[in-house]
Amino acid sequence: MQRMDAAPFMPEENSPREAEDALQQLGGLLADDMRRCNQTIIERMQSPVALIPELAAHIVAAGGKRLRPLLTLAAARLCGYEGERHVRLAACVEFLHTATLLHDDVVDESTMRRGLSSANAVFGNKASVLVGDFLFARAFQLMVEDGSLEVLSILSRAAATIVEGEVLQLVTQNDLETDEARYLDVIRGKTAALFSAATEVGAVVAEAGAERQAALARFGLDLGMAFQLVDDALDYAADPDRLGKSLGDDFREGKITLPVLIAFHAAEGEERAFWERTIGAGEQEEADFATALSLMRRHRAIEQTQARASEFAHRAKAALDVFPPSPLRESLLASADYTLHRGR
Amino acid sequence: MQRMDAAPFMPEENSPREAEDALQQLGGLLADDMRRCNQTIIERMQSPVALIPELAAHIVAAGGKRLRPLLTLAAARLCGYEGERHVRLAACVEFLHTATLLHDDVVDESTMRRGLSSANAVFGNKASVLVGDFLFARAFQLMVEDGSLEVLSILSRAAATIVEGEVLQLVTQNDLETDEARYLDVIRGKTAALFSAATEVGAVVAEAGAERQAALARFGLDLGMAFQLVDDALDYAADPDRLGKSLGDDFREGKITLPVLIAFHAAEGEERAFWERTIGAGEQEEADFATALSLMRRHRAIEQTQARASEFAHRAKAALDVFPPSPLRESLLASADYTLHRGR
Repeated sequence: MQRMDAAPFMPEENSPREAEDALQQLGGLLADDMRRCNQTIIERMQSPVALIPELAAHIVAAGGKRLRPLLTLAAARLCGYEGERHVRLAACVEFLHTATLLHDDVVDESTMRRGLSSANAVFGNKASVLVGDFLFARAFQLMVEDGSLEVLSILSRAAATIVEGEVLQLVTQNDLETDEARYLDVIRGKTAALFSAATEVGAVVAEAGAERQAALARFGLDLGMAFQLVDDALDYAADPDRLGKSLGDDFREGKITLPVLIAFHAAEGEERAFWERTIGAGEQEEADFATALSLMRRHRAIEQTQARASEFAHRAKAALDVFPPSPLRESLLASADYTLHRGR
Repeated sequence: MQRMDAAPFMPEENSPREAEDALQQLGGLLADDMRRCNQTIIERMQSPVALIPELAAHIVAAGGKRLRPLLTLAAARLCGYEGERHVRLAACVEFLHTATLLHDDVVDESTMRRGLSSANAVFGNKASVLVGDFLFARAFQLMVEDGSLEVLSILSRAAATIVEGEVLQLVTQNDLETDEARYLDVIRGKTAALFSAATEVGAVVAEAGAERQAALARFGLDLGMAFQLVDDALDYAADPDRLGKSLGDDFREGKITLPVLIAFHAAEGEERAFWERTIGAGEQEEADFATALSLMRRHRAIEQTQARASEFAHRAKAALDVFPPSPLRESLLASADYTLHRGR
């Protein structure tokens, strides 16, 4: 992917209120598909070993917006698909996502997820690692039942790419030498790869042809980039009640995200020393997070991160130009705006 | 699987020395295949994210006997296969196995593996969880490249079953109410399922037909049961230098294995209280492991466990009756005896 200029950017986008409504509209258009997808998720996370569905239910039932499976369902329908395969594949996508969440929370030592105690906090790291593995294996069983080698290829590649992004994130932790290109590699892997695979497999089951398949893969990729950029901004800017996890987790873990890079590269003297101590050396005191927030405000780090997210969302929307206007297309366009305005 | 009587059992088996030689002979017969398999393993564990091959090399290079990929190669050749697909699938099987080892060591908090520091001890739990995920994803990519949905079905089912066995093991930890049937479920899942899948996919690529495929799946399953029973005996009986990990790990973790169940069910009064304290309640002191060993000697728990392993090895060997005699078949039969006499 090319670097984009950080020049002022005026996206044509819906207002926050309109964006929320639009996402609900997308869910409304796909309500029947989504209901069957949720049913598949519940059915296929079962196991004779009771702890598996128990732990899986903790994270699956906690909900979240099911954005990724919604994207698979929407992509298939946008391509005129009228069968049933997209429902099972949407469940696969959610299983892969849930598996990575379980392992992420272990890796990040998180205690909160979606406003509830994280699975590792309730059931322990061991069970979270293993149930993540189970959901991963189960996702592949579902794909095999579907029987498309192309789908299997897209999703197995995505699974490997997700992990590469996460390992890269682990390696760059506390490393202020990390540049923006490398940061973008991290989020492309850990987040955008699955968004892209989610939309692409929708096109594949619909046998939509190369152009539309590529367009939907592109849409998912850029949407995922926008989504993660906003996520990284929210860790320094969200209303904690809406965020559903502790504010400042990224800061405490020394994660190199765009807000940090922007503030660090704008810093001199004492400010630079602040970032080198708190992020570079990981030595933090109680008051440091408040200082980090004020330095970010000074350098407009959150606004700049949001602007980068807007660019990606704009590109995502442009990718859908190959489709004729329809209520579903408009809802997908609006869902791109939603990623920019959500509280997570 | 049926319960078998624990009646005295006189297996017709090779001596320890002959068994070692036989395993070497199996490796010798398949030396060329194994060399190409190792090459595939090295090539396909690469990633632009350097920590991934670095950590993978730590565990892959540490070696082990590559028993599982050897079984895939042997099964394919035994069925007269002359192509190349079995090499890649053998590498898949080893990747799946390595992924589970990485996660196991995190779950068990192990510090040693194959006589070296475990990957989690060197690289940390986080990296071990993620690189395990990577190898798992990469295994599926290799299967997709192979292109057989039947192979994908066998190995994705095995992957889910392995995890079910491991979660069941976690659940039964410290639980002296666990009966032998449940213990057998644990080892069938965590170990025998992959042995069985490893041999079965060898038959599948060779298009060996239903009877031979079922025979090889059966051979792998019973061999895996024997292998794990011996493994569980060794934790109380091995020469620590040969074991390659700390003796008594299972005891300290409160794992319910057959030696413990035999000693516990033979115990009364003080002995029973000993197991309830050390395994049931997990309260252990320095001298307890030596006491555990002496109680096991008193009740011949290791010999009885070994006898159960012999039964499974015997059944494994019987499954190969459908194949005409050949040097490869004799080596496979001898490898079953090897599992009974190994130091791990």
